[in-house]
Amino acid sequence: MKLLRVGEAGSERPALLDRDGTTLRDLSGLVPDIDGALLADEEALDRIRSAAEAGELPVLDAAGERIGPPVARVGKVVCIGLNYHDHAAETGAAPPAEPVVFLKASDTVVGPDDTVLVPRNSEKTDWEVELAVVVGRTARCLESHEEALAHIAGYAVAHDVSEREFQIERGGTWDKGKNCETFNPLGPWLVTRDEVPDPQALPLKLWVNGELKQNGSTADQIFPVAEVVRYVSQFMTLYPGDVINTGTPAGVAMGQPEPKPYLRAGDVVELEIEGLGRQRQVLKDA
Amino acid sequence: MKLLRVGEAGSERPALLDRDGTTLRDLSGLVPDIDGALLADEEALDRIRSAAEAGELPVLDAAGERIGPPVARVGKVVCIGLNYHDHAAETGAAPPAEPVVFLKASDTVVGPDDTVLVPRNSEKTDWEVELAVVVGRTARCLESHEEALAHIAGYAVAHDVSEREFQIERGGTWDKGKNCETFNPLGPWLVTRDEVPDPQALPLKLWVNGELKQNGSTADQIFPVAEVVRYVSQFMTLYPGDVINTGTPAGVAMGQPEPKPYLRAGDVVELEIEGLGRQRQVLKDA
Repeated sequence: MKLLRVGEAGSERPALLDRDGTTLRDLSGLVPDIDGALLADEEALDRIRSAAEAGELPVLDAAGERIGPPVARVGKVVCIGLNYHDHAAETGAAPPAEPVVFLKASDTVVGPDDTVLVPRNSEKTDWEVELAVVVGRTARCLESHEEALAHIAGYAVAHDVSEREFQIERGGTWDKGKNCETFNPLGPWLVTRDEVPDPQALPLKLWVNGELKQNGSTADQIFPVAEVVRYVSQFMTLYPGDVINTGTPAGVAMGQPEPKPYLRAGDVVELEIEGLGRQRQVLKDA
Repeated sequence: MKLLRVGEAGSERPALLDRDGTTLRDLSGLVPDIDGALLADEEALDRIRSAAEAGELPVLDAAGERIGPPVARVGKVVCIGLNYHDHAAETGAAPPAEPVVFLKASDTVVGPDDTVLVPRNSEKTDWEVELAVVVGRTARCLESHEEALAHIAGYAVAHDVSEREFQIERGGTWDKGKNCETFNPLGPWLVTRDEVPDPQALPLKLWVNGELKQNGSTADQIFPVAEVVRYVSQFMTLYPGDVINTGTPAGVAMGQPEPKPYLRAGDVVELEIEGLGRQRQVLKDA
């Protein structure tokens, strides 16, 4: 299933994208919202699936409406750094021996087509298309890849927007450059795990002002999705509604020759993962 | 005012500690909970203050009941590393030129006397008493220390529990060792800003099994509270209900000679900041 949330920020309604790929169905008669509680509730998900298959869900006329992030009240956002061979190479870093983990605050999460703000005093706002994992079951110290995959509710496109000066040149950890307002567009859809048979075979693309900048595949991940989930669960408890951004392939601004083409107000970023949908953001000054 | 929340996890009631220092007053007739929305609502806070001064608040008989974290639905937890001269020295680090910032997930926040879990496979679970700032107003790019202080709702004791091997020896940022389950006891009280005239004159103490381990003062902070809030607001938007842990003084296990006395199941940690109350946690294996 492709689950999404439609409407103004803070008052989105839960919806489902039909198998035809265009019709939206209203889920608000079945479930209050798409959030961690729903994703942990197999029975509720089965009710949605059955109603969809039986053609019982009303059409949602949402023409022109905003799409919100596909998960309400996202818990924590865990990020994996340097997780693609080609991206590690372009940043000059050796492939890490263990996954590099950092956090984003969930208040950075916005809808897939919402405005992204260039922070005040930013000169190095950069893009990163990523495959996001949405957690469906509470996970502690998972032991196997099979177990890890069973704790995933689904997948989504994430834009891990990053300010490189704040991240790297201002001392301390990376978190300073990862938590600016609007820095984590998510969506448009949460695609349930059953519809993504192989998370290591997903092409990811990102364009800036129509020019293709990132063109990778999750096949190039150093630590595959199942290992990322297993590994992170050794250090922190994962809860339904938590999100893991699993890293970005090569092609970010930081990896390009001077003058590096960092983002400015007016720039348009589009990003896409095959089967998971497409985002489009216009940059504005904060 | 000293605001707190009493009851089992997830069903705490809002309360106030009387000026006599022992009587609890029930706030549930006045406000639904103590959270970011309440802290941003000056009128609601004034109603509590007036009712308390008029002696109109009913006594809350909570003998033997658990105390929860003093803020419900904590937003993000921002932490400042190496922010005391004596602690930077004991870890062998130079005093940082700018505040070191990292994040903890808000799901690590527990009550002041709740069990703290030693993570599976942990050999280096360490303690850190900290002054926590609770944000009361949305803050973006604050310009002055006066403005920064005006965005603070109040202060609390925080225990920034840390796993040093996960934090330092496993690659990447510190976040891996800071986000284990139960790793951020908070409380007992949120003490409103008006009752803490000088946040740079607070003695902090921490004991393990009755032995004094940390004995510092916020006077030793490299970046004072007002500068921390101003600085962090340059990189991320602070919202009501967010928490900032402002760093720990010397005396952590990591800073002591071998064999370093890291925490084990059965250990008892007590910590206190003058005027802000006292915590007591028993360690158990996860």
